[in-house]
Parts: sequence; C-alpha cells; structure tokens
Amino acid sequence: MAKKLTKREENYSQWYNELVVNADLAENSAVRGSMVIKPYGYSIWEKMQAALDKMFKDTGHSNAYFPLFIPKSFFSREASHVDGFAKECAVVTHYRLKNDPENNKIIVDPDAKLEEELIVRPTSETIIWNTYKNWIQSYRDLPILVNQWANVVRWEMRTRLFLRTAEFLWQEGHTAHATKQEAIEETEQMINVYADFAENWMAVPVIQGFKSENERFAGALETYAIEALMQDGKALQAGTSHFLGQNFAKAFDVKFTDKTGKLDYVWATSWGVSTRLMGALVMAHSDDNGLVLPPKLAPIQVVIVPIYKGEDQLNQIDEKANLIKSKLEEKGISVKYDNRDTQKPGWKFAEYELKGVPVRLAMGPRDLENNTIEIARRDTLQKEVISQDGIENHIDNLLKEIQDNIYQKAHKFREENTFTVDTYDEFKDIIENKGGFVLAHWDGTPETEQKIKEETKATIRVIPLNAEEENGKCIYSGKPSKKRVLFAKAY
Amino acid sequence: MAKKLTKREENYSQWYNELVVNADLAENSAVRGSMVIKPYGYSIWEKMQAALDKMFKDTGHSNAYFPLFIPKSFFSREASHVDGFAKECAVVTHYRLKNDPENNKIIVDPDAKLEEELIVRPTSETIIWNTYKNWIQSYRDLPILVNQWANVVRWEMRTRLFLRTAEFLWQEGHTAHATKQEAIEETEQMINVYADFAENWMAVPVIQGFKSENERFAGALETYAIEALMQDGKALQAGTSHFLGQNFAKAFDVKFTDKTGKLDYVWATSWGVSTRLMGALVMAHSDDNGLVLPPKLAPIQVVIVPIYKGEDQLNQIDEKANLIKSKLEEKGISVKYDNRDTQKPGWKFAEYELKGVPVRLAMGPRDLENNTIEIARRDTLQKEVISQDGIENHIDNLLKEIQDNIYQKAHKFREENTFTVDTYDEFKDIIENKGGFVLAHWDGTPETEQKIKEETKATIRVIPLNAEEENGKCIYSGKPSKKRVLFAKAY
Repeated sequence: MAKKLTKREENYSQWYNELVVNADLAENSAVRGSMVIKPYGYSIWEKMQAALDKMFKDTGHSNAYFPLFIPKSFFSREASHVDGFAKECAVVTHYRLKNDPENNKIIVDPDAKLEEELIVRPTSETIIWNTYKNWIQSYRDLPILVNQWANVVRWEMRTRLFLRTAEFLWQEGHTAHATKQEAIEETEQMINVYADFAENWMAVPVIQGFKSENERFAGALETYAIEALMQDGKALQAGTSHFLGQNFAKAFDVKFTDKTGKLDYVWATSWGVSTRLMGALVMAHSDDNGLVLPPKLAPIQVVIVPIYKGEDQLNQIDEKANLIKSKLEEKGISVKYDNRDTQKPGWKFAEYELKGVPVRLAMGPRDLENNTIEIARRDTLQKEVISQDGIENHIDNLLKEIQDNIYQKAHKFREENTFTVDTYDEFKDIIENKGGFVLAHWDGTPETEQKIKEETKATIRVIPLNAEEENGKCIYSGKPSKKRVLFAKAY
Repeated sequence: MAKKLTKREENYSQWYNELVVNADLAENSAVRGSMVIKPYGYSIWEKMQAALDKMFKDTGHSNAYFPLFIPKSFFSREASHVDGFAKECAVVTHYRLKNDPENNKIIVDPDAKLEEELIVRPTSETIIWNTYKNWIQSYRDLPILVNQWANVVRWEMRTRLFLRTAEFLWQEGHTAHATKQEAIEETEQMINVYADFAENWMAVPVIQGFKSENERFAGALETYAIEALMQDGKALQAGTSHFLGQNFAKAFDVKFTDKTGKLDYVWATSWGVSTRLMGALVMAHSDDNGLVLPPKLAPIQVVIVPIYKGEDQLNQIDEKANLIKSKLEEKGISVKYDNRDTQKPGWKFAEYELKGVPVRLAMGPRDLENNTIEIARRDTLQKEVISQDGIENHIDNLLKEIQDNIYQKAHKFREENTFTVDTYDEFKDIIENKGGFVLAHWDGTPETEQKIKEETKATIRVIPLNAEEENGKCIYSGKPSKKRVLFAKAY
C-alpha cells in the first residue's frame, strides 16, 4: 500500500497517473512512451477482451493475424491515408547486429540494411487489403468479416499511461463487402457493439455520432465514434468504426465479380478499440481512494478479510469464510479470501479499496457468534452488518446493483455537465470554466471548426446520430445550421 | 477446394506447404518471412491458447504485457544471451517518415534518428528483468509468476509457414523465485504442463529431457524440452522451459532481502511455446487427403452435409439436421450444418476432409425414411450408417475415441521409429536411410556432438529425463557413457 493519492480536485492529471501506478495497472518502461501492463491491469484488459471477442463472434466475425511489419511503399498507395498515418512511425531499417570488434558492445551491422524499410504497423488497412486482394475474386468470397487482436505503434511525442502510448494493444476489425449498403450497415453495427460494451460492461455512458471531416480517420468516407465524458469535464473517444468506401480496394486493386458477372471494387470498413479503454474506465468512475470498477470487469468481485486474534479465531473464521467463498463461486462470482498474516486488516481494506474490488466482506469474532458479516460497497463506501444466511443471493443482487449504480452515477454526471449554448461567449465560458459537453450549432465548415479549436481548444467530438433537426445559427460564423453538434476539450 | 495435395511420400515438404495453404491455415505475406495466419488456422491457435492459458492460470500464473521494443544496450548485459540472440534481429533506427519533396513517395526522415536503436523483441528476458528490478525488494515480493502472450521477431533467413517465420506468436513465461530449488521446480512444472498439453490436447506424444550444452537457451543453466517425432522421421522441438539460475538477476542487478535479512540475487525461469505448435500438429497427424485434427483442438468437430434433390427434400433434411445440431451443441460439441446450395456434396466432403473436421454426417432422403444417418470418421476414413436415435451420445463417445486413436497412432509410429544403436555405422545408416529417433551412447562432450552433427546432420534432441543408467561406450569416440541420449535430424 503506497502513500495516499493526490485528490482529484487538486490535480486530476496527477491523481490519474498515481492511481494507474499505485493500483498496479501499468507503469512506464525503459522504452520511451511504451508501458508495462502489470498483471492486475492486464487481468482487467483480459475481461474486456473476452467480452468484446464474444460480441464480435456473435456478430459473425473471426480472428486472424497479419504481419507486424508493413513495407514502406504500402503507405503511399492510399493518398489520404499517408498524410494521416505514415508520419510518426517506428521504422525498421536493419536486420542484424554484430559485435563491435573495438569493445564489448554490439552495433548495428551496416551490411544488413533492408532494401525497403519496414514500418511497424500503426494500423493495418494497407497490409490487410494487400492480402484481401488474393482472397477475393467473386461475390461468393464476400463478406470477409475478420478481426485482429494486436499491438500497434504510433510514435507519440507526449505519452500518458493507457491514454496515449507509443505502443498499445488493440483490436482492429477489417471487413470487405459486395455492396455499399452492406458496408455501411457493418460500420453501424460495430459502433453499436462498442456503445453496448461501453455502457453495459464498462458502465460508461457514451454518445454515438459521426466525426467531422477534420477528425475523420485518414482514408475513411465516414467515421462513427463513441464519446464519453470524464470526471474532469474532458471528452474521451472510446471507439471508432470507419466506412472506408472503395478507397482501399482501389489503392490495392481489389475487385470482385458480382452475381451478374460485372467487375467492381470491394467495399470496406474498419473499426477498433484499444487499451485506451483502460484509461476511460479509470477516469470515469474512480475516486480519491482509488479505483472503482464495475463488477462485470473486476478481476476480483468480492474480497473477504478476516479480523482475528490468535490462531484459534483465525481457524474458525477460515472455515466460515471458505464456505461463503465456495457458495459465491458456485454463482460464478470471483472471490479472494485474504487471510495472509503478513498484513493487518486496515492495510488490506485500503489495498482493496485502491484496487476497486466492488464488495468487501469482513468477518470477526462477533460475527462468528452472531452468524453475521460486515459488507462494504466500494462504489458508495457504505457498510452494513448482515446475516450470513443467503449471503450468496444478497451479493449476487448487490453486484448487479453496483454495476447499475456506477452507470447511473456516470450518466447523471454527464447530464449535469452537458450544456446547450447559443452564443460563442457562453460557449467559451463553459469550455474554459466548467468543462463538459457543449451542444451548439455549427455551420458545417472545417474552417470554422479549426478556428474554434484554435481559440478554445475545444473540438467537435461528434455530430450525434440522434441529433434533432433544428434551425439555428452557427455560434461562430452565424451562418445557418440544421442541428447541434457536440463540442468538448478532449483527451 | 483446390487441386489435390502432393502425396507425403512423393515430397513431404511440399505436401506440408500445400496443406497449410490449401486448408486455409496460413499463407506467406508481402513481408519476407512473415506469414498471415488465416481465420481457420487462427481458430485452432485460439483453442491452443485457451487450453494453455487455463493450465498456466491453474498453476498460479498471471498474464501481463511488456514492451515490443528493447534498447539495444540491454542485450549486452547478459554475455551468453548476446551471442545466442542479439544477432538476427529487426532494428528500429528512426521514428518518422516524411513526404519526399521530389516526388509522390514517402521517405525516412533523416532528422528522426533514434539516439539508441531499439530491437524488436526476439525474446523478452532482458526487458522483463529490467522491469522486475523495480518490483522486487523482499522475499514477500516473490515468487513472481508472469506470462505474456506476444509476437516476437527473429530474422530467419530460411522460413517456412509456422515452423520458422521471422515474426511468430508465442507465450513466454518469466518467473522470479527466492530459492534455486523453487526455480528448478517451476522449470520442471512447466515442461510437464507442455508435455501434458502436447499429449492430451494435440495428441502428440513427446519425450521430455534436458538439452545438451550446445542446444541450450542462451543464458540458461539448464534447458528442458519436449521433442516430438514427425511423420517424415524428423524431430520437432515443441516447447522449452529454462532454468536461468541468477544470470539475468545479476545482469540487471535484481536482489532481494530474504527472511533472515540477507541480500541475494533472485532465481529465474523462462518457458515458451509458439505458433510452431501449429506446424507440429499438422505434420504429426495429417494425411494425403488433408488435415487430421484431434477433436479437442478442432474448430468444427462435426459437420453435417445434406444430400438432396429439390427444396422439399432440403426442407425436411434441414429440420432433422438442425435438431441433431442442437442436441450435439447441448453436449458442448461444435457443429456446422453446411446446407449451402452453391456447392455440391462431393465438394463439401473433400473440403471438410481437407480441413480435418473429425466427424462428418451426411443425410439423404433414404435416411429420412429410415431414421438413419451416415457417419464418417476423418482419422480412419471409415463410414457407417447408424440410427439417429441417441446420436449425440454416440458422437460424444466417438470424439473421445478419435482423440485417443490419433494419439495412439502417433505413439505407435514413434515406437516403430525409435531405434537403439550401439555403433556409429548403424547410427549413420538409420539417420540417413530411415530417419526417426535414435538412442545412443554419447561421451558428453560438445565436440563429439558437433562432429556427429557435421557428419550426419543429426543433433542431440534431448537427454531423456527417464533415461536408464546403463554402462556403454560413445558411438563416436568410444569413451564411456552412463546413459543413452536421443538423436535425430530436426526441424
């Protein structure tokens, strides 16, 4: 158990950094911008992966694996993709080291220079569409519904654990379709899957919408995104799904024969979420005591701590606690019974609070006498003493209640921090002083968006899918607008 | 369905390459030496991963994730590790590309050169022990039992799908212990886990043993390995577990305070298996018709093919087939009902034979009348007509029988191709003309092993753990030997 966390209101950014490290989620590594994901953090990521992977498979997708390295020339093929992606990349130029005859060091062997440099994938559209070319001849070969779990590298200059790292883990779906309509439906299906996951697993409410042209994925005709609001009033993009049109099919010459025998380019989508979701999870729910994890993603859902003097008492508590543990496990609840004698109960309480274990049970000698147990909720920090009878049902229900409560709390926070404004002065005031989501009219031009960004640091997070038609005037230019878009400062 | 496979006895190597590609397991990519693992191949790998991951967790390990890139200087820290590993590696030297002002191409930005080159991990001991340094102070921090699922890169000059590729997927366990004894027990536990997996999941019998000094992992004091025999009489190393002593702890200065307050270096192990196992699986069991998969690793365990004329018949068969499908699925058996009308039954039969589906059911109009179904086993290619009643129990048992039969067949093959020889002439004759495992006496010197390798291409695969004490003479030098070691030509 490390020292107390910085409080959120003192310094939100420092609170986040300390929490990620102290709760054993991740830490910086010896390689600039690359993190180590520690076992506790990784076990949360594994739960995310398992839930998402099932959702992908339930919607007909299969996993595959494509190369880490991409020939440099591939990036020049799709014009807009180059500008967006090919710049800040790790470049492999040599394939051998050798001993330096002059000293005990090893050096890069100058004779082992690659003819064409290889780029460590920042995203895999190019190598995958180059592969799809060989997989697709006819409409019978379509659709291709493939996902990949992989590491990718983008040479970010300013990095933060989980939120922005040079290397990160993600999944990238890459699908190929015979018709534009089918590809658009796929794009929409997957942003719905992401929203479902964010809300029902992570307990993070999200707004779905389109990205403006400025914020669109390089090479996409349309980018759908989900945006979540963090406790400091900044937005976090939690997942994107791209309708790529025929851009990559054209760049890699991927054509198919349709049912009538006509040759046409294939339609594409891609979609992804990353370990960034870990950052969103931490920032959306946690408090000054540590992590608050939604039960569905908590590696340990219930911890039991014995409070005892002497071995006799401990033996009696062990027996009861192990009984409760097995009853809970029969219900599919993950339980840790921590009867280590190297640490005191108070230390354990603080430790599991820091780690966000949703339910803590404490059992002492009085509980043995009275057939009771103390139960504490991590989300509300409420404690009560209850009977041991039927505790498994009580906890089963409580975990659902906690999952729901965490979501409702985040939802309420978002509602309270979403503002509808009609003037630029109001807009600037909220963005600067309050933070949060701001719904405002926009004239639809990249130029206006750019100006607003330069002046306020706020960007258009999404053009919400469910935006009502409404006549208004752009807060910046005064030009007519048909609907409000969602602005915020963002991670 | 592609053209017929080359027969094994004509050209085993070509048979293997064709099978891997035709059965949709993997293919070569645009990047030299890197493969694409296709969805069907990847789904087998996922089954391997799931089984292994559970075995690792059942033995107390957790997953984590460490950086892809390793600073070049780390490789110089452990002297023997450098020589073994740091040579054929992908080296990242730059972190940015830019548009070439002269044409439409992109070039590596010469201003974005890294101060210290980064190596794409060929294995992660160095970066992990550099990390463990910060995790370990006291005996209370030990043991650390961590595994990582990751991609690694070794710049192999001659590559073959799954068996030897520049990039491959694997898991690498890295554990830290307070005592030598505990580390050795961990090393042994993990080679046992691998042997258990190979035999009970892959249905591949293996020999456990120590590697000779020549074949040991660079930096290990002892390497345990499991060796399997392929159908062409060559050995394949299927997994290794290394006792690293205190070598990496010393190289990265990782000390701990023991219970008595004394400072000592930490003891280490590492162990791994890779997508190479896919190659072993294919080569151990498959035949001239295609893959033969053990049911426990088959993505589709049962396929049902309807044989019909006209929609009426198909509708009737659909109904029956779907009923059987759900009965099987209730038993946890994975089933595909392939009633596509774009392909004929004969095509489907050949396709699922190629893909190694363990059980094929075919249902025609006569089966509808007689309440029967045709059942075909992939392993023996036997067919029979059975009643539909109780078919789910029949198939459940049959899958177990097939799993066992595939193992027994491979075991019998290995027994028949394991030879005990006492002279170098016999040795050379078998290695050159028959292939297989050869048990022979060896004087224990690296020089003799090297000579034998140069003259016959056979190497010591392992010094078997269960080798009997036996007085003999080295087949090469005639010097005394206490036990026989296992020789073979190897992949």
